[in-house]
Amino acid sequence: MCGIFGISGHKEAGKITYLGLYALQHRGEESAGIVSYNKNNIIMKKGMGLVSDVFDKKSIDSLKGKVAIGHVRYSTTGGSHSKNIQPFFVKHKNGNLVIAHNGNLTNSFDLSTKLEQSGSIFQTSMDSEIVVHLLAKEVSPSIEKRVINALSQIEGAYSLLLMINDTMIAARDPFGFRPLCLGKLEGAYIVASETCALDLINATYVRDIEPGEIVFIENGKLRSVKAFEPQKHAHCIFEHIYFARPDSMIFGETVYNVRKKLGACLAEEAKVEADFVMPIPDSGSFAALGYAQRSQKPFELGIIRNHYIGRTFIQPSQFTREFKVRVKLNPIKNVLNGKNVVVVEDSIVRGTTSQNRVKTLRNSGAKKIHFCVSCPPIKNPCFYGIDFPSKKELIAANKSVEQIKDFIGADSLHYLSLNGMLDSVGIDKQSFCTACFSGKYPTKIPTKFSKKMLEKNK
Amino acid sequence: MCGIFGISGHKEAGKITYLGLYALQHRGEESAGIVSYNKNNIIMKKGMGLVSDVFDKKSIDSLKGKVAIGHVRYSTTGGSHSKNIQPFFVKHKNGNLVIAHNGNLTNSFDLSTKLEQSGSIFQTSMDSEIVVHLLAKEVSPSIEKRVINALSQIEGAYSLLLMINDTMIAARDPFGFRPLCLGKLEGAYIVASETCALDLINATYVRDIEPGEIVFIENGKLRSVKAFEPQKHAHCIFEHIYFARPDSMIFGETVYNVRKKLGACLAEEAKVEADFVMPIPDSGSFAALGYAQRSQKPFELGIIRNHYIGRTFIQPSQFTREFKVRVKLNPIKNVLNGKNVVVVEDSIVRGTTSQNRVKTLRNSGAKKIHFCVSCPPIKNPCFYGIDFPSKKELIAANKSVEQIKDFIGADSLHYLSLNGMLDSVGIDKQSFCTACFSGKYPTKIPTKFSKKMLEKNK
Amino acid sequence: MCGIFGISGHKEAGKITYLGLYALQHRGEESAGIVSYNKNNIIMKKGMGLVSDVFDKKSIDSLKGKVAIGHVRYSTTGGSHSKNIQPFFVKHKNGNLVIAHNGNLTNSFDLSTKLEQSGSIFQTSMDSEIVVHLLAKEVSPSIEKRVINALSQIEGAYSLLLMINDTMIAARDPFGFRPLCLGKLEGAYIVASETCALDLINATYVRDIEPGEIVFIENGKLRSVKAFEPQKHAHCIFEHIYFARPDSMIFGETVYNVRKKLGACLAEEAKVEADFVMPIPDSGSFAALGYAQRSQKPFELGIIRNHYIGRTFIQPSQFTREFKVRVKLNPIKNVLNGKNVVVVEDSIVRGTTSQNRVKTLRNSGAKKIHFCVSCPPIKNPCFYGIDFPSKKELIAANKSVEQIKDFIGADSLHYLSLNGMLDSVGIDKQSFCTACFSGKYPTKIPTKFSKKMLEKNK
Amino acid sequence: MCGIFGISGHKEAGKITYLGLYALQHRGEESAGIVSYNKNNIIMKKGMGLVSDVFDKKSIDSLKGKVAIGHVRYSTTGGSHSKNIQPFFVKHKNGNLVIAHNGNLTNSFDLSTKLEQSGSIFQTSMDSEIVVHLLAKEVSPSIEKRVINALSQIEGAYSLLLMINDTMIAARDPFGFRPLCLGKLEGAYIVASETCALDLINATYVRDIEPGEIVFIENGKLRSVKAFEPQKHAHCIFEHIYFARPDSMIFGETVYNVRKKLGACLAEEAKVEADFVMPIPDSGSFAALGYAQRSQKPFELGIIRNHYIGRTFIQPSQFTREFKVRVKLNPIKNVLNGKNVVVVEDSIVRGTTSQNRVKTLRNSGAKKIHFCVSCPPIKNPCFYGIDFPSKKELIAANKSVEQIKDFIGADSLHYLSLNGMLDSVGIDKQSFCTACFSGKYPTKIPTKFSKKMLEKNK
Repeated sequence: MCGIFGISGHKEAGKITYLGLYALQHRGEESAGIVSYNKNNIIMKKGMGLVSDVFDKKSIDSLKGKVAIGHVRYSTTGGSHSKNIQPFFVKHKNGNLVIAHNGNLTNSFDLSTKLEQSGSIFQTSMDSEIVVHLLAKEVSPSIEKRVINALSQIEGAYSLLLMINDTMIAARDPFGFRPLCLGKLEGAYIVASETCALDLINATYVRDIEPGEIVFIENGKLRSVKAFEPQKHAHCIFEHIYFARPDSMIFGETVYNVRKKLGACLAEEAKVEADFVMPIPDSGSFAALGYAQRSQKPFELGIIRNHYIGRTFIQPSQFTREFKVRVKLNPIKNVLNGKNVVVVEDSIVRGTTSQNRVKTLRNSGAKKIHFCVSCPPIKNPCFYGIDFPSKKELIAANKSVEQIKDFIGADSLHYLSLNGMLDSVGIDKQSFCTACFSGKYPTKIPTKFSKKMLEKNK
Repeated sequence: MCGIFGISGHKEAGKITYLGLYALQHRGEESAGIVSYNKNNIIMKKGMGLVSDVFDKKSIDSLKGKVAIGHVRYSTTGGSHSKNIQPFFVKHKNGNLVIAHNGNLTNSFDLSTKLEQSGSIFQTSMDSEIVVHLLAKEVSPSIEKRVINALSQIEGAYSLLLMINDTMIAARDPFGFRPLCLGKLEGAYIVASETCALDLINATYVRDIEPGEIVFIENGKLRSVKAFEPQKHAHCIFEHIYFARPDSMIFGETVYNVRKKLGACLAEEAKVEADFVMPIPDSGSFAALGYAQRSQKPFELGIIRNHYIGRTFIQPSQFTREFKVRVKLNPIKNVLNGKNVVVVEDSIVRGTTSQNRVKTLRNSGAKKIHFCVSCPPIKNPCFYGIDFPSKKELIAANKSVEQIKDFIGADSLHYLSLNGMLDSVGIDKQSFCTACFSGKYPTKIPTKFSKKMLEKNK
Repeated sequence: MCGIFGISGHKEAGKITYLGLYALQHRGEESAGIVSYNKNNIIMKKGMGLVSDVFDKKSIDSLKGKVAIGHVRYSTTGGSHSKNIQPFFVKHKNGNLVIAHNGNLTNSFDLSTKLEQSGSIFQTSMDSEIVVHLLAKEVSPSIEKRVINALSQIEGAYSLLLMINDTMIAARDPFGFRPLCLGKLEGAYIVASETCALDLINATYVRDIEPGEIVFIENGKLRSVKAFEPQKHAHCIFEHIYFARPDSMIFGETVYNVRKKLGACLAEEAKVEADFVMPIPDSGSFAALGYAQRSQKPFELGIIRNHYIGRTFIQPSQFTREFKVRVKLNPIKNVLNGKNVVVVEDSIVRGTTSQNRVKTLRNSGAKKIHFCVSCPPIKNPCFYGIDFPSKKELIAANKSVEQIKDFIGADSLHYLSLNGMLDSVGIDKQSFCTACFSGKYPTKIPTKFSKKMLEKNK
Repeated sequence: MCGIFGISGHKEAGKITYLGLYALQHRGEESAGIVSYNKNNIIMKKGMGLVSDVFDKKSIDSLKGKVAIGHVRYSTTGGSHSKNIQPFFVKHKNGNLVIAHNGNLTNSFDLSTKLEQSGSIFQTSMDSEIVVHLLAKEVSPSIEKRVINALSQIEGAYSLLLMINDTMIAARDPFGFRPLCLGKLEGAYIVASETCALDLINATYVRDIEPGEIVFIENGKLRSVKAFEPQKHAHCIFEHIYFARPDSMIFGETVYNVRKKLGACLAEEAKVEADFVMPIPDSGSFAALGYAQRSQKPFELGIIRNHYIGRTFIQPSQFTREFKVRVKLNPIKNVLNGKNVVVVEDSIVRGTTSQNRVKTLRNSGAKKIHFCVSCPPIKNPCFYGIDFPSKKELIAANKSVEQIKDFIGADSLHYLSLNGMLDSVGIDKQSFCTACFSGKYPTKIPTKFSKKMLEKNK
């Protein structure tokens, strides 16, 4: 997964973009980058790590100009190279081309093979680079035509930002898989993955970029183009469940409220006897609040997140894997001891994390552990940008709910139903992609993947 | 403030100490150090920064031996030098002397002056070094006599660990200002500032080191000595309110429970009308839970702590100070908008932080803000190790509650009463030091401070 | 200027290349890189700085495989970017393409313009990248044909190494501007800019790669191709005067001997009265030796080079520019005081360095300073890879010998004559390029330079 | 060995000291430090490595004040700790005490034992720290008395600088083992190990600090005190042979001239037939010049020092030790091939270096190698600061000249005689220490060494 942010027409464009990326940090912790455009020059600052590690005062100050776009990238297993850090920039006869991309193309293998045959030399293993080569091949003098022609050739999930010299272009695929919103700040246009980026900088939320829409922003003017055939919307429901920030509004609803509703629905469905309700912090916090309020059980913080866990914590080898969990999440023995507890988590992927959480609770004295999950079992891979592991590693693709309960060691296990989930999202249930739960994919599935795609660079 | 941890008789003493310091990180974020003793050699690893920054696998592995003591140190304004990192170690005719100290000596000026007159050369500006020079002057062949003689000369607050070759010695001042507990793990004795350090490594809590007790641990045997005149106990109540970790048990009670009781008492006293109760995260979380449960109002997380705030976040200069708060603590607009809220915080020191929190809530749409504080107004300095600012900067020493309410911009402000606070601590009210609230100091106050003490090294 | 080194068929190819670059360090101090090929994988290590800074044990050990090529690059004013470090590598349908290049193309502007029109995207500002794009456009299944076709399109000075998968290819332009030699070590073929790289590793010198020759080395076999129209040779005489290492043999002669002969010819021509002869260290050392021996005057080391001058020496601002010279080159007052000296230098470019040297000698007590230069006045730019400054900055293009003497402050100034210089080189005088002295260029001069060429990436 | 530099009364004292240390770099490459005194504050910058590595612009600029002293320290095997970097500084009732020391105390074991008994705590393993503790024990209000009392207790070799607040004090032991000179610059007094430090900054040489003299410099005034019993001088002749810089004047003679005379005497004594004379660079350069001139043989540079050898050069493991020599010193094959050569070196210690040099020459084609050494065989340890290896490792203490010749592989080996050496030094032969050659020590030899001394910190 990734987060993107761009602004056009603000004299502090670089700084604003830095702040925007900060707000989008949860969408990608592996690397970050910002490119600004100033008087025919491109200024680019990129690096591995968190936004606060990559940029310092000097680099932020150097990002001069009124247009800037930025990107944060998720840490995926495998292809984590510094040359894959986005935004990706090339100089070309058509000018400076810059791209920042969130999503995953489903026809990247075919496109990259064709381009190489004709002499194109690829610099990275990112499918995003394909868009740049498609643009470099275009000969029309009109930027609009070049962009439409290039984007017409790509398929799959994309919310993307382009910068061609001082023109900023935002585009969202016709299915609307990933969120993308439009904002305004002191006359400047902003495009961001989530509204939390607008809130941080006190920008006004204008509207979402619509599925299938391309927006050209130049000299303070915005031109919207709809050049693709419309599709039935397929918003990623996992953004609401897990990925997006709770204070964002995406696909028309505040994430915090959706999560509380997921928890409340879960309370209706699960109906468990317990002394109190507690979240796995912080992922289950909001669903747990919703659960506690609907079930009228006390809400307790039975486990407290340790804020000092740095990336460099060393685990002495004689300790178990569960130990590492205990370092991160401190259970309160005197709260848990001898109690029956409802524990709320947002999702189960491989099952090992939940297993460790249950072990921690058990070791701290909890008597009965009712594990409640605010979404249905995840059984299928995602081709649109969520970095799930392979089907072999998805526990719900291989075990029954009863078996999963045994595996994680809980006294009972309760998943939210597909309907319960869809009842919580606020808008038309039909406009969501639920493929990871239901197996119903809204697009053709790619049969052959480019080796490059295996590095999953979304 | 500082945290200390020591273990004697465990073949992984260095690694265990690393983990112990990890659990005590909240007691001091400025620097960390561990010293172990292995076959007549002292191994020392120290550095500025968090425990996870200071130590890496190589340095932890190098800390061989069966005895080790460690220290984390709080960042105070001023005297933050790398040579002040503890533990402090010297080689001497009496062997290797190592000290780790939490607290504050009140007669350090007199002692250091006397020692310099006789030719002692001080290496640091820490009052802890005084103990080492006093020990170096002692000529008795008995370690016990040397330690008792040296400690008899110091006054004030101290929970300290000494290592003299392979003997580990723990001592706590007769007033018992700071916590210090004794644990056991696989036959080895452990001494730590708080029980959370024992829990992390699955050690058993044995008992507290008693006020005025000196404990000598050598070859798996523990010898307790009480050499000082007993004093009326004066435990620091601010440890319960703010400093200690919620999952620790100190002065006989679990901190989590005390904090919930403080919140419940506050609910009884404040009696405010509101739509819901929310904490200032994370400091007010437990008192807010107690408040919500006692007042039977909904508990919401109206502000969410941003986990990505690194120490290196750059705030572009055109943004206000309140902005920095907003980066750290993300308010949920759609939860706060138009609501009357009870906001619970653990304490108010200067008032500026609370002012910024109120501003953030106001900007996010909150209608009425009732600010509730789970302790009385702080009006006096601490001479026993809490690093309050000068009286000039303590807002409650200079303004009335009404004025503070206006300063922070709340619609109402409610402090917990002194009695309400003492009712929540579980044990004998008389055994606490409340000097910062009441001005009643349990010891003579130093009239003249060593210049060195101004650097406040605890 | 640059240095290149490659080896094919040795199980320690990466290590040998590291040593080879070490021996060629004088040809480029700005950056260094090595690429090796191991089982379909390319391993690349590059960095700014000296060979000993760029590589450590770990990186050298990682350069596995039996084929490797390396490059050192000269520090030029302006375009010193880390992405311009060679060797330059791309992955393409034709396999892995790697290039290392010494020289300067004279038709780079025309070629790069044409390539961009057809959709090629350039990654660097090096003319060397053009060769890679020309190769990527070639469709023949024969490597030989692809290479010949690509190289037929480039003009100017080049000694270059290509690696296409495990085939190593060496080529030298038809004029033979830059040196390039072939060696053998334990059955493996080596190609290097100078023979000193062969000597260091105890490899055997086989012969020079001939002007216009392309050599393909694969599976221990060497195939030589001559595909271009022969040209009258135009070896760079400045390699003998200044650039090459004294222990190398280039263009058929040992540089040490040529330099001594230049000094001897200079003694014949200059005929100066003096107490002794001394060099400007180390550039004038060999010519000074030749001068002293021919003139039968004592040889003294009146100035000693300081070996501790690091790149990081700080010159306090109140000191003059001459001071910096004095830090680097320590004059021996008691040797110079009151003496008439012949001072030998290899060349004068801008004149400022010589001016500072004369000042240093004067301040140290020298009475008469006869400045003798072992080449003629440099009056013209070089289009074949020597990084002279612009004509405006070449002192001999703007001043007479008398004026230069006054500028540098010497008592007399003696340049070697063009004939004297050509008499010293050992082989056919006609086979050298003397354009920088005589203005007679052996090729068409480029009328328009690519902006990219302005960054002078030879 | 070490180098010291101090200046009093100059507004750029810190910068001047930096330059002074630069000129003295050859006396110690392991670490460097400068301490300046500014308005009751001590400013200290120290670090491991060369002067140019330790200091940057910022640290030099921070060394404010009109008095500063600096130190460079030699890399010895063993005790190379960052806390042993000089100058050594402590704060004490008597004020700020700073010391920089070149030499070696012979009674350090007795002194340090006595001090520890009385409660002193040592911070380092340097004998220089003893002087500081002796000073801290002194109670006289007169600085002069305190210094004289303290220095009266130490024995052995010392040229040292003290700074007590703003008073700079220089002292030299009564034997005058190590050089120490006095200079003036713009009214400020300078004390330095060698005159080359004065020359670099254009300071005037005033005179040497005399053996047994203590000099107090304060407020622009110099007061000289001779408080110790005079001794027969015992200047270290090895300073002339090897250690000092050729452009320095020490013990009354220019080192360059002494070295040429040593070479000339050697030519008289050796009388070898050869094609030419060449030095081992750079150590043998000046003696080789003297040899060639006296013997009227051609002088050649048969081996050229490679200026690119960084400290980080990696030698691939399959290469021999001789290879590393070849990397540093490039032999010119075409000069050496088939020739009979006189090779001049300054000294032989272990013999392994010379062995490698001979091997290099042999591999490069030299026919006959006559190895000529410009001092007698070194047979005895030095107790006065030269860091010779133990007697077991001194080749001349264990082998005859014939055996050494065989060991190093030369065709003949010629040492300069003791008389020949003493004839070259210019002043009274009797005033030199020749203990390392003759075994005649000018002082009592210490029978028992402090463990600390084993770390040989000079």
